[in-house]
Amino acid sequence: MAKAKKNVYFFGGGKADGSAKLKNLLGGKGCNLAEMCRRGFNVPSGLTITTEVCTYYYDNGRKYPKTLKAEIAAAIKKMEKVQKKKFGDAKNPLLVAVRSGARESMPGMMDTVLNLGLNDRTVEGLKALTNDGRFAYDCYRRFIQMYGDVVMGVQKKDDNEEDPFEEILEEVKHKVGAKEDVDLNEEALRQVINGFVKLIKKHTGKAFPQDVNKQLEGAIGAVFSSWMNDRAILYRAKYNIPAEWGTAVNVQSMVFGNMGEDSATGVAFTRNPANGVNEFYGEYLVNAQGEDVVAGIRTPLAIADMAKDANWKKTHKELEAVRKKLEKEFGDVQDFEFTIENKELFLLQTRNGKRTAQAYVKIAHDMVKQKLMSPEHAISSADPEAIEQLLAPIFEAKGLATALKDGSKIAVGLPAGPGAASGLLALTAEKAEEFAKHGPVVLARIETSPEDLRGMIAANGILTAKGGVSSHAAVVARQMGKVCVAGAGDVLIDYKKGTLAAGGTTIKEGEFISINGSTGDIFAGKIETAPSELIQVLVDKSLKPNKSELFKYYDFVMKLADKARVLGIRTNADQPDQASNAVAFGAEGIGLCRTEHMFFEGDRIDHVRELIMYAAEYSEFKDKLAAGGNEKVLRNEYDGAIKHFNNSLKKLQPIQQKDFEGLFKAMDGRPVTVRYLDPPLHEFLPQTPEQKRDLAEKLGISVGDVENRCAALHESNPMLGHRGCRLGVVYPEISEMQTRAIIKAAISVAKKTKKKPQPEIMIPLVGFARELELQLDIVHSVAKEEMAAAKTKIPYKVGTMVEIPRAALTADEVAEHAEFFSFGTNDLTQTCLGMSRDDAGTFLPHYEKPEVAIVDNNPFASLDQTGVGKLVQAGVEGGRSTRPDIKLGICGEHGGDPASIEFCHGVGLTYVSCSPFRVPVARLAAAKAAVKAGVKLGGKKKKAAKKPAKKKAKAKKAKR
Amino acid sequence: MAKAKKNVYFFGGGKADGSAKLKNLLGGKGCNLAEMCRRGFNVPSGLTITTEVCTYYYDNGRKYPKTLKAEIAAAIKKMEKVQKKKFGDAKNPLLVAVRSGARESMPGMMDTVLNLGLNDRTVEGLKALTNDGRFAYDCYRRFIQMYGDVVMGVQKKDDNEEDPFEEILEEVKHKVGAKEDVDLNEEALRQVINGFVKLIKKHTGKAFPQDVNKQLEGAIGAVFSSWMNDRAILYRAKYNIPAEWGTAVNVQSMVFGNMGEDSATGVAFTRNPANGVNEFYGEYLVNAQGEDVVAGIRTPLAIADMAKDANWKKTHKELEAVRKKLEKEFGDVQDFEFTIENKELFLLQTRNGKRTAQAYVKIAHDMVKQKLMSPEHAISSADPEAIEQLLAPIFEAKGLATALKDGSKIAVGLPAGPGAASGLLALTAEKAEEFAKHGPVVLARIETSPEDLRGMIAANGILTAKGGVSSHAAVVARQMGKVCVAGAGDVLIDYKKGTLAAGGTTIKEGEFISINGSTGDIFAGKIETAPSELIQVLVDKSLKPNKSELFKYYDFVMKLADKARVLGIRTNADQPDQASNAVAFGAEGIGLCRTEHMFFEGDRIDHVRELIMYAAEYSEFKDKLAAGGNEKVLRNEYDGAIKHFNNSLKKLQPIQQKDFEGLFKAMDGRPVTVRYLDPPLHEFLPQTPEQKRDLAEKLGISVGDVENRCAALHESNPMLGHRGCRLGVVYPEISEMQTRAIIKAAISVAKKTKKKPQPEIMIPLVGFARELELQLDIVHSVAKEEMAAAKTKIPYKVGTMVEIPRAALTADEVAEHAEFFSFGTNDLTQTCLGMSRDDAGTFLPHYEKPEVAIVDNNPFASLDQTGVGKLVQAGVEGGRSTRPDIKLGICGEHGGDPASIEFCHGVGLTYVSCSPFRVPVARLAAAKAAVKAGVKLGGKKKKAAKKPAKKKAKAKKAKR
Repeated sequence: MAKAKKNVYFFGGGKADGSAKLKNLLGGKGCNLAEMCRRGFNVPSGLTITTEVCTYYYDNGRKYPKTLKAEIAAAIKKMEKVQKKKFGDAKNPLLVAVRSGARESMPGMMDTVLNLGLNDRTVEGLKALTNDGRFAYDCYRRFIQMYGDVVMGVQKKDDNEEDPFEEILEEVKHKVGAKEDVDLNEEALRQVINGFVKLIKKHTGKAFPQDVNKQLEGAIGAVFSSWMNDRAILYRAKYNIPAEWGTAVNVQSMVFGNMGEDSATGVAFTRNPANGVNEFYGEYLVNAQGEDVVAGIRTPLAIADMAKDANWKKTHKELEAVRKKLEKEFGDVQDFEFTIENKELFLLQTRNGKRTAQAYVKIAHDMVKQKLMSPEHAISSADPEAIEQLLAPIFEAKGLATALKDGSKIAVGLPAGPGAASGLLALTAEKAEEFAKHGPVVLARIETSPEDLRGMIAANGILTAKGGVSSHAAVVARQMGKVCVAGAGDVLIDYKKGTLAAGGTTIKEGEFISINGSTGDIFAGKIETAPSELIQVLVDKSLKPNKSELFKYYDFVMKLADKARVLGIRTNADQPDQASNAVAFGAEGIGLCRTEHMFFEGDRIDHVRELIMYAAEYSEFKDKLAAGGNEKVLRNEYDGAIKHFNNSLKKLQPIQQKDFEGLFKAMDGRPVTVRYLDPPLHEFLPQTPEQKRDLAEKLGISVGDVENRCAALHESNPMLGHRGCRLGVVYPEISEMQTRAIIKAAISVAKKTKKKPQPEIMIPLVGFARELELQLDIVHSVAKEEMAAAKTKIPYKVGTMVEIPRAALTADEVAEHAEFFSFGTNDLTQTCLGMSRDDAGTFLPHYEKPEVAIVDNNPFASLDQTGVGKLVQAGVEGGRSTRPDIKLGICGEHGGDPASIEFCHGVGLTYVSCSPFRVPVARLAAAKAAVKAGVKLGGKKKKAAKKPAKKKAKAKKAKR
Repeated sequence: MAKAKKNVYFFGGGKADGSAKLKNLLGGKGCNLAEMCRRGFNVPSGLTITTEVCTYYYDNGRKYPKTLKAEIAAAIKKMEKVQKKKFGDAKNPLLVAVRSGARESMPGMMDTVLNLGLNDRTVEGLKALTNDGRFAYDCYRRFIQMYGDVVMGVQKKDDNEEDPFEEILEEVKHKVGAKEDVDLNEEALRQVINGFVKLIKKHTGKAFPQDVNKQLEGAIGAVFSSWMNDRAILYRAKYNIPAEWGTAVNVQSMVFGNMGEDSATGVAFTRNPANGVNEFYGEYLVNAQGEDVVAGIRTPLAIADMAKDANWKKTHKELEAVRKKLEKEFGDVQDFEFTIENKELFLLQTRNGKRTAQAYVKIAHDMVKQKLMSPEHAISSADPEAIEQLLAPIFEAKGLATALKDGSKIAVGLPAGPGAASGLLALTAEKAEEFAKHGPVVLARIETSPEDLRGMIAANGILTAKGGVSSHAAVVARQMGKVCVAGAGDVLIDYKKGTLAAGGTTIKEGEFISINGSTGDIFAGKIETAPSELIQVLVDKSLKPNKSELFKYYDFVMKLADKARVLGIRTNADQPDQASNAVAFGAEGIGLCRTEHMFFEGDRIDHVRELIMYAAEYSEFKDKLAAGGNEKVLRNEYDGAIKHFNNSLKKLQPIQQKDFEGLFKAMDGRPVTVRYLDPPLHEFLPQTPEQKRDLAEKLGISVGDVENRCAALHESNPMLGHRGCRLGVVYPEISEMQTRAIIKAAISVAKKTKKKPQPEIMIPLVGFARELELQLDIVHSVAKEEMAAAKTKIPYKVGTMVEIPRAALTADEVAEHAEFFSFGTNDLTQTCLGMSRDDAGTFLPHYEKPEVAIVDNNPFASLDQTGVGKLVQAGVEGGRSTRPDIKLGICGEHGGDPASIEFCHGVGLTYVSCSPFRVPVARLAAAKAAVKAGVKLGGKKKKAAKKPAKKKAKAKKAKR
């Protein structure tokens, strides 16, 4: 233990111990109350007990620091001075509100006690002061009820019971014939209070405390305890708030909005948080306390209408002034609470207002232009995830409302690709393609495989019964910007019958189904949808940019983000249209083109299958030849394999070349990272009897032969099997073919366009530097040959994925051969955690339960920084130690996750790569990370994260 | 480049620049020549060009250091002085031999040139000096032939051709009617020489060089070049000799064993290297050069018989003296070469003699007792691997010889479990058990699974067609000490027909087959076998220790090893008999008991299956209950699952308890590390239709239901799936049951025996500290409960496997809960390398090819120190940072691999654990590592490897 810490911070009378800078110590509410005091807002005085006391409390068996009691007493004295009242005084009592206040707002999760300081004596003082017995006893009644519930634990036992306090209240109301609470007079309220006090005694065996200091002690304890209630624990688990943060406790002088018709209470936003329009947005309630507004017992009035009421005209003017001043002083839209006590306006709380993505871009645009908000704040206050909402197609509001009511909703899955889709149900890729000729299609599969790709391309929405948010379906859907609901376990798909059944409803193939990838909802029938305005501008080009207000705001924010960010942003794309979309969204290059994704189009899969079926045999031939076997004899023996193997490669090369040409053109001179063949070969094999029969026919062999060859390729753990560069090492001909296709494509495009393509060849699954070295030999020799033949030069780079721990741990050796690293954090997570993404569904959900709490997040969605992060760090350090200017990227699913992007910025990567529709999210997240690390948008940058300024500058330059 | 290095070391005349300490620099031959000179042996003078010159040569485009020429000339001058001859002098020419000499002997791999310095003039000088024209021209003939071949590259083009030099030689012999080479007279030899010189000119276009310095330059270049010839590259790949080591070149004055009947040449061991007997063991050839002995053209005579020949009696005496002196000076059995030139005895080379394991233990015993060998050398010269030979059953020599000749050998697989087995062929576990009633059995399977375990127990030998030396079959076989030949790809096993076919022979089930697990040989028919003498003493106890000489020697060496080693040695054992064997071999505890290995015995598999089939459903019931579901309703709904799940656990607990009691008893108070259930559950499921039908009947459900439940448990990558502690986390009841069984067993054994068992509970596959914490809660609460009930205390520890990268990388966090770590390097290798042990067979053999050279060793057999080693190191450092006294072990297959054991010593582990029959290997390897790191057997220890002395002491104490 160090020296005695300051545990209690006073605010009031235009002064404050704390300020907005002490958010971690005083919580959001406490620090803003202090700041408002400092900035001249009329705030009832009070004190804040720090979050560190909370931590102390839990670390020390629920005991307080020794000096706390005295510090509270001293602050209360100051409050008494400012408020000119006395805590517990019978004649002029100071009443206080006790509220929680964590670093991040956790609305409704923790406990609050109002009107504290009332007892049988002080209530009389309040009555005398206000000359209002009903008011005084109503306050007392409210206080006892709250205190009895929150502090003394008098609560209903289960949901079927009535609240015991409300029961007494209703009884008395019934007895005296009162309709509403406000209809109870002083005498009736005394009866209620009498009942409450007895209830508490009966329930707890303890009397309701008359000593105001005991009351205060109890309430503070209750707030601290509520930090660990089930609700709060669950909430923290959901929003990743560490338990160690703790909550502060605010004890604030009470002001009364319920002191009569000249009193009121209200909540307001300084601008419209739904659409960002610069208008006063809030409500108030005359003669009421704050909880009445929240509870919704009476309907509040709009502040906009306040000016119409002569009695409130002046107050309205004051509120308008406060609104302006709040934005000016706090530099953002404020969400604030106020109380008017006998025409005097008090501010009880303020905080930055939560808003939709649409409101966010408009507010950022407007307030930065108005110089009310700093550009840095515009970035740091962004919720990058939410930006995706702006791109998602949407259900028409009316149709959705109807569907939600009329029982059309049949199940809920995981929201895996945002937006709304409505279309004809297809259960196979073939049907999806067929139906797509007639209209939008939703493809539903138990789970998807690469075989389903053309169906997914044809469909508007994808629905799976198995698999999580990072399953094949979800990953591909996001990459394509398709709506996706994954892992809807209650949905039964019967391929034979051609039906999908859930919630008692059965939908046949060809009937309408609708899915909401933002919520996971699944509906029977059709709901009209519309593409988002941004998509109309950026992708459809059906709307001119200057015709879209939303685009103007979006573009403003994105340009700000681009100015701020240090990380480059690339995209994962395999098709020209994906690439074009990504460029429209701001991608500066392709960080990952999965060549094998191109293998399923048209009849090219036949060539791939031919290759695979004969690869092992062809390799055997070469081995025997190398071992000195007689070439003539061997060529005869292996005649079939040699022909098939070479034939398939010969056919695949021009196809791949054409694909790459499309990508190079779409990327218009931007770098294109092409990953060589990666998955285990058997992924491409025929699955169904028809496919096998078909292939046997095409190859002129028996079905049995096809089956045997497929079986020979089976692996126990394909993820850890013969894949990645292991294929290129054993079958160098494949790497040769791919190199030839890339270089020839680049040469051809370079001739036709002005900008030379920048191919970046990426060797996957390298674990040993020597693997890369061997592949490099092939790439360079083929490239040299092709460039010499075409008498031209194409600038290209060769690098590697760092996706297995050994590559990261020996990055210094690997970097001797690699011009760039791309961290493949999907596989790196699988290997570092020893956890198969496809199989984790049986235990990972259990791991995420709050009471189990083994992982905070799904490590396949957000990078496990403690574990996998160490490997990335080792890879970065190792790589730079050998090759200081090595280009470093990330191309796993994490490349589009804001928390992971912040990590990438921190370790000093050059770029992140994500699916096209995540590019705006990534741009914003990268900018946010940079601002957090100290980048300034005025001009110069502070040093950002752990990297020396010099390297930073380099990384910045590397952006394209 | 630093200052000029000394590139050439002179020796001769009783002095030498070098010594035995400079082995790395001078190579084995060079340093021992220097040392012999220093120690007064009669060695022809010479010079050694260092290995660093070789490295320089290859690093600098095959050029030499600038000073080399001058240094060689200076050394030649010294040689001339000692030998009183002159290099290239026409009257008194100095002739030299040029030989390679690497750090490790690479017999026959590199090139040698003898008689260098002869030309048309010096040959006449030699003739005059020796007065023997035939001799002089024979020397010249030999020189030209060797030089033409080795330096000038005149060689036959393929194996079918005759050697072109031999062709000429034969021609002349035929012409002059000579039978043997020695029958050629001077004139005939001149003709031969003439032919040779023409051949060279014709072949190379160059003349045979007459300048002796050119000759020398050429020969040195040839030796350095031969370091990179195919033979040498292959040899180095096989024996893990780094190319960077380079070779030295020795240029030594020639002495002539072929100068007449008073000259001779020979090779000898100072003791018998086959059995270790202290007798002079070697051969000599009168009037011959060294190559004649090696070439085997003439049959050499035994040195033991030399004394019988009056002419050689005195020389024999001299040789006897040399023999004694060599052992005394070099402290080990020496393998030396000598030449007698006109009765003068010269030593040309000496080195420690290679020997069998049997000879090794006898020699170590004898020479240490005779104080001829230091105890440290006895240990450091051990080949730990070879010790296993002493334990393996053997084929009777006669029967084996016959079988090797008569075509009984039908195939060769990988030698995976040493020893010989002959028995009835069984193709299923059932048959193996049945046949075992009648005699020894060899179980042959395409590959084995845990299902086959009882068959493997019943069998004497195991043969598989698929899988490598670390496949399931091999691992289990070694653990059980069974003979095993794995991955015999040429063997066709047809389960339906009940046959095994290979090499044209078909063997039916029930017929005899014999396998040699030390060589991989597979024979049709029966060959008699015998258990090794050590097994008779240690395991069978059929031979009293004092009746076995071999045991005396073995025991002496092992006790020396135990004194030296710092690492503790434990064993991997699941059965009491395995445990007892391991103790007999010197195990100090069980480092790994795989509880699931016990699951297949008897009908217990039925209970396991019942558990698995209902686990998911039971878990669902608990989840719903926890979510607030109505207990009554749920209990009703899940009635079957609840009953089956609990029932199976209830039945398994006493079975497991009994197993543990057996182990605890066998280990007699030594620590027993029990790993909790580890493999993915579906490994235990029924495979065949019969098994499914049987289970359905037992559970009273339909076969379809069984099939559905099995299918639901299927995983894409089981290695990375729901296994290890993930089972215990999701199904805490399993961990509860296992804890109860262990603690109850320990209590029961503690009551019956004097020594309390020391259970060490090991949680597998931990990746997150919190997983361990959750399992710890279960273990401690159950243990507390059971100990309270029994009113006793059992000392137990709880620790974890570190077998996935994340555990190693976050070892500091994991160690907060773990009292010990055991590095599970099997899985750690799989995850670190992203390589499935079961699937690597398709590419790992390719990776090991010398021209590919991605891996030096199979990383599943010998720890990948560069990659996986970094994780082990991180785990050690992390663990110790949190818990300085944490116990650290290794229990992967690497625990029995000498290179890996040396690594374990280096990073400071507490113990290694290996299969019972590997325990002696591990003891010796651990001792060897300690001695290498500086441990002295006299008394005190020097600091060993990277660890501070203090920790070392601790580790030492931790041994049990």
